Amino acid sequence: MKNYRLTIQYDGTRYHGWQSQGNTGQTIQSKLQAVLETLEGAAVELHGSGRTDAGVHARGQVANVLLQSEPTCDEIRAHFARYLPRDIAVTDVQEAPIRFHARLNACAKTYSYRLWNNAVPNVFERPYLCVFTQALDLTAMRKAARHMEGPHDFRSFCGLSRFKKSTVRTIYAIEIKQIGSEIRFSYTGNGFLNHMVRIMTGTLVEVGLGERSPEEIVDILDAHDRAAAGRTMPPEGLCLEQVLYDPI
Amino acid sequence: MKNYRLTIQYDGTRYHGWQSQGNTGQTIQSKLQAVLETLEGAAVELHGSGRTDAGVHARGQVANVLLQSEPTCDEIRAHFARYLPRDIAVTDVQEAPIRFHARLNACAKTYSYRLWNNAVPNVFERPYLCVFTQALDLTAMRKAARHMEGPHDFRSFCGLSRFKKSTVRTIYAIEIKQIGSEIRFSYTGNGFLNHMVRIMTGTLVEVGLGERSPEEIVDILDAHDRAAAGRTMPPEGLCLEQVLYDPI
Repeated sequence: MKNYRLTIQYDGTRYHGWQSQGNTGQTIQSKLQAVLETLEGAAVELHGSGRTDAGVHARGQVANVLLQSEPTCDEIRAHFARYLPRDIAVTDVQEAPIRFHARLNACAKTYSYRLWNNAVPNVFERPYLCVFTQALDLTAMRKAARHMEGPHDFRSFCGLSRFKKSTVRTIYAIEIKQIGSEIRFSYTGNGFLNHMVRIMTGTLVEVGLGERSPEEIVDILDAHDRAAAGRTMPPEGLCLEQVLYDPI
Repeated sequence: MKNYRLTIQYDGTRYHGWQSQGNTGQTIQSKLQAVLETLEGAAVELHGSGRTDAGVHARGQVANVLLQSEPTCDEIRAHFARYLPRDIAVTDVQEAPIRFHARLNACAKTYSYRLWNNAVPNVFERPYLCVFTQALDLTAMRKAARHMEGPHDFRSFCGLSRFKKSTVRTIYAIEIKQIGSEIRFSYTGNGFLNHMVRIMTGTLVEVGLGERSPEEIVDILDAHDRAAAGRTMPPEGLCLEQVLYDPI
């Protein structure tokens, strides 16, 4: 038996997320597993670094899988290239130590959130952008983002109200860049709660509109209450950019 | 009556080209005209700089239209932003001299052709790339491209065998760039025949594969025969980048 580490890219538009909660249709994980099962001749289980929601994209999702048939990495690559739908691609396959686990060993992740801030639409990248045409104050948003960085209890930014486990996470960095008509948010942290990036972005947008002051972030964090934070942004602007691991 | 110059971007995937030859379904031109007609309250005719084929994209198509109702450029922009489908956008509207004509006054155009030269697919830009995984000799293709530059009779590169008018055109420059896994061809010339860029690219690809020598381009041009040139590449890799006009 060998363990393999896969790097995966997908356009999440057509999918019910990485993994379905219940049997609600096609998922990225089920598509990848189906291809691996034709190679293995038996059921396989792919472990992703974490779930992504319906409609969310990934440029660098990581997953691992144990295969009894011990194919070469090239065989796995060729099989994926041949059988995956065009909106999912495995961009890298590496043999990994047998105890490598894509979720348990992940030490940091980077997500991007892309806003299209122009009344003239972007025709070519429309599936990957959230259109938001109102003017935003980037200086205020950057000030607010500083208050989100560091270790905090992010319960106010968690979309699951009955979440039982710890909601403490560390955000290492938030970058907000203007790239032409696009405003690109980048979040790096040691872990993210359900809808966390979308709620953080929605709250920053409300700061950018002048509806909240940057300092309010401190009160929102202290409230430990989802109702204190801002709107949840739609999924299409969100992309899992990379997952980082300690050397093991 | 005022004359307006429009700059237009579109993802051609869903359309039967800029203008249909006969009544064969939806075209870019008909979508734009329909929006303008709701503003004008009467039939309008939009003059494009030239046709693009079914499935071909544009980043900088130019068209002009005469409107009796003399709306402001802002009114036209707002109307397009509101009523166009998401895969067509008018990126600029300017009032133009009454005798400006987008096709008759065009002095040069640039087209790009994008090949994805990797077995691992590009998930995010797949509608705008032609996947071609065989290795290509860029040096040989660039040598061949030099023989295509200049004024030539391009009948061998014309997709319409019964084309009655002159097939002499001037190609000012052909660039071939490697950008990561992408090979991007860029063609600037004073005019292009039916399928001309797709046949030129297909012929350059055959040079890149070693199936033809760069010098063969001279013989192909001299043959004045479509059968002498290479394959017609598929439409999805092609994009009309810009149209240039002399100041009038």
